[in-house]
Amino acid sequence: MSSSWGRQVVYSLFGESHGSGVGITIHHLPAGFQPDFIRIRKEILRRKPGSGIHATTRQESDDYEILSGVYNEKLTGAPLTVFFRNTDTRSKDYQSLSITPRPSHADYAATMKYGGHQDPRGGGHFSGRLTAPIVFAGALINQFLEREGVLIGSRIFRMGSVKDHPEMLEESSVVRICSGELKGRPLPFLSDESIAEALFLLEQLRSSGDSVGGQIEVCITGVPPGWGEPFFDSLESSIAQLVFSIPGIKALEFGAGTEFSGMKGSQANDPWTTEGDQIRTKHNNSGGINGGISNGMPVRFKVTFRPTPSISMPQNTVNLTTGSDTVLEIHGRHDPCIVPRACPVVEAIAAMALMEAMLDQQLQKKEAWR
Amino acid sequence: MSSSWGRQVVYSLFGESHGSGVGITIHHLPAGFQPDFIRIRKEILRRKPGSGIHATTRQESDDYEILSGVYNEKLTGAPLTVFFRNTDTRSKDYQSLSITPRPSHADYAATMKYGGHQDPRGGGHFSGRLTAPIVFAGALINQFLEREGVLIGSRIFRMGSVKDHPEMLEESSVVRICSGELKGRPLPFLSDESIAEALFLLEQLRSSGDSVGGQIEVCITGVPPGWGEPFFDSLESSIAQLVFSIPGIKALEFGAGTEFSGMKGSQANDPWTTEGDQIRTKHNNSGGINGGISNGMPVRFKVTFRPTPSISMPQNTVNLTTGSDTVLEIHGRHDPCIVPRACPVVEAIAAMALMEAMLDQQLQKKEAWR
Amino acid sequence: MSSSWGRQVVYSLFGESHGSGVGITIHHLPAGFQPDFIRIRKEILRRKPGSGIHATTRQESDDYEILSGVYNEKLTGAPLTVFFRNTDTRSKDYQSLSITPRPSHADYAATMKYGGHQDPRGGGHFSGRLTAPIVFAGALINQFLEREGVLIGSRIFRMGSVKDHPEMLEESSVVRICSGELKGRPLPFLSDESIAEALFLLEQLRSSGDSVGGQIEVCITGVPPGWGEPFFDSLESSIAQLVFSIPGIKALEFGAGTEFSGMKGSQANDPWTTEGDQIRTKHNNSGGINGGISNGMPVRFKVTFRPTPSISMPQNTVNLTTGSDTVLEIHGRHDPCIVPRACPVVEAIAAMALMEAMLDQQLQKKEAWR
Amino acid sequence: MSSSWGRQVVYSLFGESHGSGVGITIHHLPAGFQPDFIRIRKEILRRKPGSGIHATTRQESDDYEILSGVYNEKLTGAPLTVFFRNTDTRSKDYQSLSITPRPSHADYAATMKYGGHQDPRGGGHFSGRLTAPIVFAGALINQFLEREGVLIGSRIFRMGSVKDHPEMLEESSVVRICSGELKGRPLPFLSDESIAEALFLLEQLRSSGDSVGGQIEVCITGVPPGWGEPFFDSLESSIAQLVFSIPGIKALEFGAGTEFSGMKGSQANDPWTTEGDQIRTKHNNSGGINGGISNGMPVRFKVTFRPTPSISMPQNTVNLTTGSDTVLEIHGRHDPCIVPRACPVVEAIAAMALMEAMLDQQLQKKEAWR
Repeated sequence: MSSSWGRQVVYSLFGESHGSGVGITIHHLPAGFQPDFIRIRKEILRRKPGSGIHATTRQESDDYEILSGVYNEKLTGAPLTVFFRNTDTRSKDYQSLSITPRPSHADYAATMKYGGHQDPRGGGHFSGRLTAPIVFAGALINQFLEREGVLIGSRIFRMGSVKDHPEMLEESSVVRICSGELKGRPLPFLSDESIAEALFLLEQLRSSGDSVGGQIEVCITGVPPGWGEPFFDSLESSIAQLVFSIPGIKALEFGAGTEFSGMKGSQANDPWTTEGDQIRTKHNNSGGINGGISNGMPVRFKVTFRPTPSISMPQNTVNLTTGSDTVLEIHGRHDPCIVPRACPVVEAIAAMALMEAMLDQQLQKKEAWR
Repeated sequence: MSSSWGRQVVYSLFGESHGSGVGITIHHLPAGFQPDFIRIRKEILRRKPGSGIHATTRQESDDYEILSGVYNEKLTGAPLTVFFRNTDTRSKDYQSLSITPRPSHADYAATMKYGGHQDPRGGGHFSGRLTAPIVFAGALINQFLEREGVLIGSRIFRMGSVKDHPEMLEESSVVRICSGELKGRPLPFLSDESIAEALFLLEQLRSSGDSVGGQIEVCITGVPPGWGEPFFDSLESSIAQLVFSIPGIKALEFGAGTEFSGMKGSQANDPWTTEGDQIRTKHNNSGGINGGISNGMPVRFKVTFRPTPSISMPQNTVNLTTGSDTVLEIHGRHDPCIVPRACPVVEAIAAMALMEAMLDQQLQKKEAWR
Repeated sequence: MSSSWGRQVVYSLFGESHGSGVGITIHHLPAGFQPDFIRIRKEILRRKPGSGIHATTRQESDDYEILSGVYNEKLTGAPLTVFFRNTDTRSKDYQSLSITPRPSHADYAATMKYGGHQDPRGGGHFSGRLTAPIVFAGALINQFLEREGVLIGSRIFRMGSVKDHPEMLEESSVVRICSGELKGRPLPFLSDESIAEALFLLEQLRSSGDSVGGQIEVCITGVPPGWGEPFFDSLESSIAQLVFSIPGIKALEFGAGTEFSGMKGSQANDPWTTEGDQIRTKHNNSGGINGGISNGMPVRFKVTFRPTPSISMPQNTVNLTTGSDTVLEIHGRHDPCIVPRACPVVEAIAAMALMEAMLDQQLQKKEAWR
Repeated sequence: MSSSWGRQVVYSLFGESHGSGVGITIHHLPAGFQPDFIRIRKEILRRKPGSGIHATTRQESDDYEILSGVYNEKLTGAPLTVFFRNTDTRSKDYQSLSITPRPSHADYAATMKYGGHQDPRGGGHFSGRLTAPIVFAGALINQFLEREGVLIGSRIFRMGSVKDHPEMLEESSVVRICSGELKGRPLPFLSDESIAEALFLLEQLRSSGDSVGGQIEVCITGVPPGWGEPFFDSLESSIAQLVFSIPGIKALEFGAGTEFSGMKGSQANDPWTTEGDQIRTKHNNSGGINGGISNGMPVRFKVTFRPTPSISMPQNTVNLTTGSDTVLEIHGRHDPCIVPRACPVVEAIAAMALMEAMLDQQLQKKEAWR
């Protein structure tokens, strides 16, 4: 299929960057819940372009219309559809992108897949604008998770040459990240120095027309042990499927991640211990997940974004019509680094995966079956 | 759900490490195809424990019985079920694992999830033994992919302190890996020196009772552009969901992976160029995938395995009955490093994801709809 | 779950009768196809209320907006979303329907399911208006099936006391039904006398404020043998799941249907014979399906609609607030018989099920797997 | 896909009539439940051939082996696989069935679908023997439903010329059917006279070598209002998809079923009324379902089985190799009427559909989401 995900809650995504708009239908929400739409809007604003130095200058209203599923401000239990109508769609010769594909964009792959019939305007269905309805979905789902005591937060772990401190997370940092404190900062780093360095870097990139990659670390507290299924619907598998659906993500690490490759078992294992009447591990290399199932410790994962492929510098490419090499210059609006705007997206994705695991686990209990 | 995956081909996995056996049902295979069962057995032998210095000393026959779906040695089109009956199941007090959970094993998470009712013997349904039927499935699917010209191979990229050379893949190395040449080596490294170092490391680990993590790099040639769907069923998403269902994997990177975080766009982008009448990129940081869709270049990804959590050294844990800290010593068979045996598993997973994308793409073509 | 269906093509339905509107997202359509939107509109008009003596007097524009998936009048391969905005939504005290549920409507069941939070206006998500996007989907899918040579038609088999002639279908009648000839008639009966009787019956019902049930027979020619999977995705199972999603349908019969219960095998069996170089059966009690798979003969099934539960007469019901018996009078627009407007809906459903079977069968062929 | 069903509980069916055996894997059962295997065996015996005058003389042991998912006699939460090994598989020239297809069997359709590569022995994957694991699954699921107060029963409504009395169900008859009382009778009719007539009919059919169709009515008490989703996963849709996966079923009616076609709304509607503190309808034409959702009244549906297509009389068919008409005589074991053995199968199917709706409804409650 393609743009549909989920078994308990089903998300059906649609739309194009420069067509009528983008939207999502969410099936099987519970009736009677009154969403806090102000909080949803705040999350959407975090993702919105044009709201900071680090962002594209595209002016999207990011206003949405709820087409179904809400009555008297409450969920009805019927499918909820939200639609973000496009307003700032500049007309230009996008068709050329099918002819001279931009390096590391989906242009060439999509042209080969769809025989050139895909909507090329602004990336069409491949655009990062599709993440606006995902943030809506995540911000809604998140309101249920919070009632369970689950808190999801994220920080920029790295932006190009700028790293956050501390690299290895102490428990106090996890709490800060999940508290939402970082949302109030110019950039969601823990370290003030990193913010300053990163703002300077973004300024440099903007003038040079180049872009840079980065990493986001997601922390989740309050997940009880037992969420996630073995094998194909493990908590790691669900997060992974969703994470790699976000344009630009090229790596995913749980807990110690790639560092495990150089570790010994005696060093990597997280020994169990008691703390008061709580059972926990001494450290959390596992990222809160063993055998695909949450173990009660904070869930932690890190994603790597590639540098935005849209850069202002001339690049080599091929003219697919003539079959000859050529040079491409991309004009227009783009982010020098996608990572700041991507934080609410990755948090949204985490909420979707966790809710699926929570509902699955509701039904694993014998009581659910009477 | 849990242990079922796929839309075009549906894989339904079952079994426990020390119960009757493990197996898989594969739905919607094409009728009339005569599988090469000798090749399937060879792949299963690559995963088999007890066949080398680096492996557990458990002696599994790894013989299987095909319960359905094959008639006159050909596929019938009906569901194919294969069953690996367990033979070497030693009886011992596994129930203690629910009481004193092993660090970084699924014991504690599973106990909390299933209320202590999971089969604890040898990890039960969480055991690596479940990957035997996955290798069967992958080795079968792979025979179709080869007819399409797709070749899947893998190498050990890193085993603890031992790295393979060259780290960055030249095209000639990709060809070697996909040729199957490495299957004949004592360990599937490209570099002879790395093999020697790794064998020495395994010997050391075996005597110390410790374990070590590692990385496997998978290379796939011959994938035409256009495989994979946007968003939730992107080629990266499908590979990711399957990869993280394999016990012990904690990180996944496509192409340049985590290194993208320090790169600039001008350096990371893969410019398009022509080579004869072929369109290709000058380098392949993207790992053969743009926008979730194959771009015609070799598909490359790297997975990180954590060190085997079963080590012979005493470890701290908690007695869940008394709630007090205690020390655990694990006796028995285990791998000092899972990576060598995991190569055919990760290749199998890749085959499953690619076949799904290939069949999806068959139906994307207008001709399929008449 | 709920309002989403399909594996090859995924249909995601949303909307309410008197909310913003109703719509559907269709995933995994093939890129490059140019739909004939005029034909789609014609089908939508067949379903439209207020267009004949037999219909409700509600004036819906039934105009739609395509929100995604079409570019330059062609399918892009990305999800296609169509939205029918509601225009003629009268405001009235619908909330009372949750308190005094209408007999044989969904009111009571929905109130108990959703705790009274469902949208009660005009039936909300349970309204027959949801079939407008289904007709859109079916009319689009049908254009592919026609290229394959598949023709779908339907007739009213029975409307209350009025039966069509001939009851048992000769081959020539099947051809007439599938030719679309009946679409031009005041009511889609084969027999002129039946039309006259039915129009008279509708007039009577309109003045008495009562309603009547009926049956639609669907005929499909040109389905090659081999469509449909054994068991849960049999052609009969797929048609059945979709048929019973249409509000008001209470019975489904394939071929001889309920009459099989009084037959002997020697009489019911359809003997194979040759006709020229064609293989066919002498009669078609099986309705073109054996073992869940099309056998090359015309596919035929019959659905029974209950009488529209909305009638103008006073009816007994219960006041859920007071718990006492009461009498309910329903005012407003309703159809004395839904069957004429339901023909394009049932045809649409048939197209959706057949396309799924056709695409499944494309992938059953060994050639699809190379 | 094909032989896999369900979203909450996933059933994966496999096997062939005369291959190694038949089986099913059931995913996502709750851990810790101790099934009553004696009751499961009793249900399997009800379906077993050779146990009465009305059945085939094939002697299947119908013993099964549980391959996974049970430990210490309790469910583990991991996939449960059960396997019925075939024992009484006579070798004969089944391949001829692909050449001279039996009328109204799947032979021709399957040959065309699978290119003649399907397992032809005894119907292969199309055999009624596949219903043995379905009865296992249903009998297991039923044990959960009973704890909720749901009782499922069935009666033979009609067997050829023999009808049960009373035809229209009074409440007392519903109670008798759901009590299991009929299981102790020679044939599950309510009426003694019907039993006698039916036994005589079966005797006649056995000597004449002919077969006869029939109808089973399923009654379910104790279903609370609110089970079932609107549209594609309506309670009627789920039952329908499963019902039509059973070999030989050609019609399905809910409540008044086909009789609705001749009714007026004023007569068909079920008025709401109070009885003590209970809310119910005066009669139950709706079969306990409105708008696809249970309304608290008994759920009732009726299925029609075609006469067993295997008859001893000579029948016309075609030789697919030569393309010429020929005459076929089928020897061997078959049921003159499948309906008595099919009762536990249809009850099993009902249990599977109800459990899916119950679990879906568990998650519709806001409390499930916290």
